[in-house]
Amino acid sequence: MGLIVQKFGGSSVANAERVMNVARIVTETYRQGNDVVVVVSAQGDTTDDLIAKAHEINEKPSKRELDMLMTSGEQISIALLSMAIEKLGCPAVSLLGWQAGFNTSSSYGSARIKSIKADRLKAEVDRHNIVVVAGFQGINKYDDLTTLGRGGSDTSAVAIAAAMHADRCQIFTDVEGVFTADPRKVPGAQKLQEITYDEMLELATLGAQVLNNRSVEMAKKYNVELEVLSSLKRVPGTIVKEVAKMEKMLVRGVTKDTDVARISITNIPNIPGIAFKLFSKLAQARINVDIILQSVGRDGTKDISFTVSKENAEGAIEAIHKTFDIDDKDIICDKNVAKISIVGAGMETHPGTASKMFEALFEHDINIDMIATSEIKISVLIDAKDADRAVSAVHKAFLPEE
Amino acid sequence: MGLIVQKFGGSSVANAERVMNVARIVTETYRQGNDVVVVVSAQGDTTDDLIAKAHEINEKPSKRELDMLMTSGEQISIALLSMAIEKLGCPAVSLLGWQAGFNTSSSYGSARIKSIKADRLKAEVDRHNIVVVAGFQGINKYDDLTTLGRGGSDTSAVAIAAAMHADRCQIFTDVEGVFTADPRKVPGAQKLQEITYDEMLELATLGAQVLNNRSVEMAKKYNVELEVLSSLKRVPGTIVKEVAKMEKMLVRGVTKDTDVARISITNIPNIPGIAFKLFSKLAQARINVDIILQSVGRDGTKDISFTVSKENAEGAIEAIHKTFDIDDKDIICDKNVAKISIVGAGMETHPGTASKMFEALFEHDINIDMIATSEIKISVLIDAKDADRAVSAVHKAFLPEE
Repeated sequence: MGLIVQKFGGSSVANAERVMNVARIVTETYRQGNDVVVVVSAQGDTTDDLIAKAHEINEKPSKRELDMLMTSGEQISIALLSMAIEKLGCPAVSLLGWQAGFNTSSSYGSARIKSIKADRLKAEVDRHNIVVVAGFQGINKYDDLTTLGRGGSDTSAVAIAAAMHADRCQIFTDVEGVFTADPRKVPGAQKLQEITYDEMLELATLGAQVLNNRSVEMAKKYNVELEVLSSLKRVPGTIVKEVAKMEKMLVRGVTKDTDVARISITNIPNIPGIAFKLFSKLAQARINVDIILQSVGRDGTKDISFTVSKENAEGAIEAIHKTFDIDDKDIICDKNVAKISIVGAGMETHPGTASKMFEALFEHDINIDMIATSEIKISVLIDAKDADRAVSAVHKAFLPEE
Repeated sequence: MGLIVQKFGGSSVANAERVMNVARIVTETYRQGNDVVVVVSAQGDTTDDLIAKAHEINEKPSKRELDMLMTSGEQISIALLSMAIEKLGCPAVSLLGWQAGFNTSSSYGSARIKSIKADRLKAEVDRHNIVVVAGFQGINKYDDLTTLGRGGSDTSAVAIAAAMHADRCQIFTDVEGVFTADPRKVPGAQKLQEITYDEMLELATLGAQVLNNRSVEMAKKYNVELEVLSSLKRVPGTIVKEVAKMEKMLVRGVTKDTDVARISITNIPNIPGIAFKLFSKLAQARINVDIILQSVGRDGTKDISFTVSKENAEGAIEAIHKTFDIDDKDIICDKNVAKISIVGAGMETHPGTASKMFEALFEHDINIDMIATSEIKISVLIDAKDADRAVSAVHKAFLPEE
């Protein structure tokens, strides 16, 4: 018994049948004596359909008008889900982002939530209504509609949970929870019962596309207990919270990220400030750099290698040319790489972890190109062709099937 | 040069090509030096599609949620039209009903405009934006979205024109203007250059489906000059205003209405209050009565005949049974009737008008069942099978081809 926020993505409400499925989950939660606020995204392909409609008329529509168009998608979902809930005999009221009090920054297409004025939300919950809120949207100081950008509906749900001090925020997806590795690819992958915010953040960053990072960060900041679970199978999911039970395992998961390009520059004069100049130029170009490796090369020159996402590779090379007077032959860009990582909170205090990972890779004849470590993860860069074998090998070493 | 409000219906914005056509009309008006506010409905079949989606989930959705669903239709139109205007190089800003300041009554599905807070509209016009407003919708005192009911977008346009003291309100449709008769059926039908509000109201009521009545009433009340014109052919339409030029003709139009049922009751005791009781019972049942005819029957009894719309025929018969203890055989309901009317402001002062109409019908051997007259119209009820012949005959008598 308490206040539960439930979030359902676009595929969960893609058609009438699925909307009814969601309504059943919501009304069951309500009938168990809980107050329920539901956050939904636009139905299935609606967003793509709307963008196609826009582009038919104007390839470069203004962002304000694009947001005006896009926000109609969730409006349709919340109305339909409310009708479905009413059909099942429970009282429902749908609220648009602005009606639910979502005040955002002004940047159309990628607005950030500034505050939630939860009066209306609270009033509707007090009236024992199931409140169905349009995710992904809000209103800026000009009284204009905005969208929150990628993964926005997760963030909407967490923000409501934080503003209303909800007992739990359930994120329903098409997977059963957070796994130690991709269960479709790694046979021994296990579902985690619990995981910490930090671990979840690392896993999300590393390519386990379960939860949007901004939503996990917000959940951590406001201490909102998250649960990731399936909208199709009625089984417990994975709880994300500050302190998680350890479940015997040190390593929480093994991830693979293939959206990586490695860029190496050789023969840089070994004088101070070189790295600073390069990476500030990259930051100016809004290019996120992940792993960085610097070494002394031949003849007192330096080598610098770093990784960026594939789409940023060309931009990074441009930035290098702007920074150094350098030959093309001294820049190597390799897109056939993958980053394999292990994540786990207690890792830093277990010195053998890194070597155990390297050993597993060595035993499978997989060459390590770069290494990066943080408090709760160890990442290695390897050949893309070895990626799946590497995940399996590392997973087997740390998380053997029971 | 001035402020012009332009309204486009759903078929005018049904697809990308038509949206661009509307954008061309709007930007031409703007480039001629006018301020322009545009009101649009939902695209073509959107409303029907949304209703179908709702009914797939719940055959009897709440009206609040239905309005939440429906209002997304105009939201899509205004965004797309604004993008089209931007594409043509003019500045545009779309506004939802609530953003444009439409405060309405609370009755979902058939709300009435209570006031327009035009601050935002004025500010956008002052910024030289073409303002694209969602018709058919507003917001009630609970901050919930409402729709205005049938013909709502016309009313939205007139209300904006009234609130902003616009110089003209142009209603774009798929016809070129108001005609003396249905041009598809009556060869000599002529387009009127001007017509008064009252004449337009009678014509609309009588089945010339060009303008919604509520919008004409509002235009009359606030003295908004209307123009009905085609969104496809660029020719002048018909102006609707307080005093119209007479254009030589006394009769403005001939109309046909086949959505009529005649109900006759015979053998009612001839005592006072009978008509009062019957028609108040019908009013309670929210049945609009059109023509009423009462005569003394045989043996000191009364006969009462009246007309209602076809869908109200059964309800009217029920109301009769609730009022009188009467035999079924004394109630006659005839749905095979049609009402033919002539409309024209100066008619009452021209005594020969009625007899000229009756003569035209007599010459074509068409029997008149009932007659009703008002200051600006004369209506007759005839057999439905004679309706088209009757319109042609009467039209020829009053409005001969030039």
